[in-house]
Amino acid sequence: MAAQPELEHPRKAFGWAVRDPSGVFSPFNFSRRFSNKHKMLRTKLIATHLTNRFNLFFRETGEKDVAFKVLYCGICHSDLHKAKNEWGTSTYPLVPGHEVTGVVTEVGSKVEKFKVGDKVGVGCLVDSCRSCQNCSHNLENYCPQYTLTYDDKYKDGSITYGGYSDSMVADEHFVVRIPDGLPLDAAAPLLCAGITVYSPLRYFALDKPGLHVGVVGLGGLGHMAVKFAKAFGANVTVISTSPYKKEEAIQHLGADSFLISRDQDQMQAAKGTLDGIIDTVSGVHLLLPLIGLLKSHGKLVMLGAPEKPLELPIFPLLCGRKIVAGSLIGGIKETQEMIDFAAKHNVKPDIEVIPIDYVNTAMERLQKADVKYRFVIDIGNTLKPSP
Amino acid sequence: MAAQPELEHPRKAFGWAVRDPSGVFSPFNFSRRFSNKHKMLRTKLIATHLTNRFNLFFRETGEKDVAFKVLYCGICHSDLHKAKNEWGTSTYPLVPGHEVTGVVTEVGSKVEKFKVGDKVGVGCLVDSCRSCQNCSHNLENYCPQYTLTYDDKYKDGSITYGGYSDSMVADEHFVVRIPDGLPLDAAAPLLCAGITVYSPLRYFALDKPGLHVGVVGLGGLGHMAVKFAKAFGANVTVISTSPYKKEEAIQHLGADSFLISRDQDQMQAAKGTLDGIIDTVSGVHLLLPLIGLLKSHGKLVMLGAPEKPLELPIFPLLCGRKIVAGSLIGGIKETQEMIDFAAKHNVKPDIEVIPIDYVNTAMERLQKADVKYRFVIDIGNTLKPSP
Repeated sequence: MAAQPELEHPRKAFGWAVRDPSGVFSPFNFSRRFSNKHKMLRTKLIATHLTNRFNLFFRETGEKDVAFKVLYCGICHSDLHKAKNEWGTSTYPLVPGHEVTGVVTEVGSKVEKFKVGDKVGVGCLVDSCRSCQNCSHNLENYCPQYTLTYDDKYKDGSITYGGYSDSMVADEHFVVRIPDGLPLDAAAPLLCAGITVYSPLRYFALDKPGLHVGVVGLGGLGHMAVKFAKAFGANVTVISTSPYKKEEAIQHLGADSFLISRDQDQMQAAKGTLDGIIDTVSGVHLLLPLIGLLKSHGKLVMLGAPEKPLELPIFPLLCGRKIVAGSLIGGIKETQEMIDFAAKHNVKPDIEVIPIDYVNTAMERLQKADVKYRFVIDIGNTLKPSP
Repeated sequence: MAAQPELEHPRKAFGWAVRDPSGVFSPFNFSRRFSNKHKMLRTKLIATHLTNRFNLFFRETGEKDVAFKVLYCGICHSDLHKAKNEWGTSTYPLVPGHEVTGVVTEVGSKVEKFKVGDKVGVGCLVDSCRSCQNCSHNLENYCPQYTLTYDDKYKDGSITYGGYSDSMVADEHFVVRIPDGLPLDAAAPLLCAGITVYSPLRYFALDKPGLHVGVVGLGGLGHMAVKFAKAFGANVTVISTSPYKKEEAIQHLGADSFLISRDQDQMQAAKGTLDGIIDTVSGVHLLLPLIGLLKSHGKLVMLGAPEKPLELPIFPLLCGRKIVAGSLIGGIKETQEMIDFAAKHNVKPDIEVIPIDYVNTAMERLQKADVKYRFVIDIGNTLKPSP
């Protein structure tokens, strides 16, 4: 028997959800689990619901749970895909949001890392198997059984709802600390866009001063890639189809140079100059010109996921021992490292803070790439519970 | 004015060449340069030819040259492509052969590493710029100005001829020592097929005991990949379209398991089991099933060069931070390391030794993949100078 969202767990929660592939958001009442300091209350609730949710409650110990009041939530482009079921995997009602920051309101009895009042965040993941090889290497993002922060299911079968809501509850393992000095609104997009570019820059050794790093696409991910690469000391080239982004890339974001990917002369002149490229483009595009930009042993790292396979010419890979790689967000330990690095080096996304009731307009603008570079919903000040 | 092959250099040489894209081999007289212990003779010759080859001889100091009598030469599949001009780059007459072993007959005055009587070999390269970043890191194989052992031009403009011939001359930097205990016939194919698989196994860290390594295609390269991977202590899976190769792969070559790439059930059962794959196939083929076989962070290394781009699905790369890479032969220092490793661990190609006058039949059989796994021409005993 499917649980009603507002009764499934003991804690009332409120957010904005989409109900169908129209992608239109509206207020939504649901519920979240407690941390286990409410054991007595839970016991009572268990008794009430025992007949149909026996397993559910027994699997939810909550002892390691951290509950926090959501203050900000970034709008990732995948929220739009999910809202409109563009990947064919959405279940409704769907509360998106995996760039969530706020302040701890409650901790379970065995929580060690956090206390009430701490500034925290949750990114794309709220659970994983915790025992596979990837999990044991702090690579929960590659665990075959990870649980996404929204539109996924916990091991107990209950639905995950994201940060377009007043509160979050997650195991402390999946909660990161937001350092002082990093505003909670700017910190939010770091939890997906930030770690998604930071992790490959680190793993593929593109984090050394003096390297030449290219960034393809200048959206939410791309602008963060420029900022992190610059913070690592790289010489950064933005590669774009849009000549009008040049001034923005260089003067505002601090890139060192700019290539128009359709300009054969520019691309030819830049052949063999880059140690690595972070490719954030999700549309189908040519890899050959990008591979050509790489030095020998260079790395083209794909972060977007085009719907169709791309054409990969093999000989140009052979000639320079080049690689084409993929990377997906990052592990929780590395996310904390990234957040600390961002605070220390003042790496912050460019954001447009919006009220929750602007979310439908924001999605329309996002569809047109009309945002520099990330919408962040001011949940704390604008999300009001329904009467 | 183009030089006549038999007069271009002072030393007479003799081999078998193809004259046109028919790919038919026949005896061929040409010449090779001296090492500079023949300075006096050269001076005389220079005087003779000074009018039209002034620059040629001045660039050929020969002081670092090693001349050797060729005893064996392997037949690489690229020799067949080149003989028939299948890559559109062949110039005729063409003397192939870049898996060349023999005994030193003469050394230039500044040669330090070799002396007359040493057992030596030359692989795919006889020169490079010696000053670029790749050259300075012993990666002459990625130097943009390398000189191939045959069908290429030295910096002085003279043509390079390969090892289907009685003698070779090369700068000592491009000559490797064949250790005692490694027969010169078996050593020959190591100089191309061997290093081509050894180098990526090392560079992509697939040389650690206990790793699971896949090998796609079981020809000249593939069978060496199995042997080197086994010598490194890997658990080796051969992936092939041909079920009849299973017994050969496992019982003869020592592979641990065998997958028929067209067998969906086998491929599904093996998903996510390999740390890396060495793909030696030159024909157009699907990458998705191979990427599926990789564990997270696994590496698919391409060694063949299909004529058309292959389809690369990006999402499967992202999900496991996987890479698709290319690799091309190896540097000279690493070639020496590989040869020493092969001698120490008794890694030898399976060869069929043939006389030079069998070369046309051998090429026909090679076209049909009818060889296990490398033809090696017994130059020393079968190549007789024309009367």
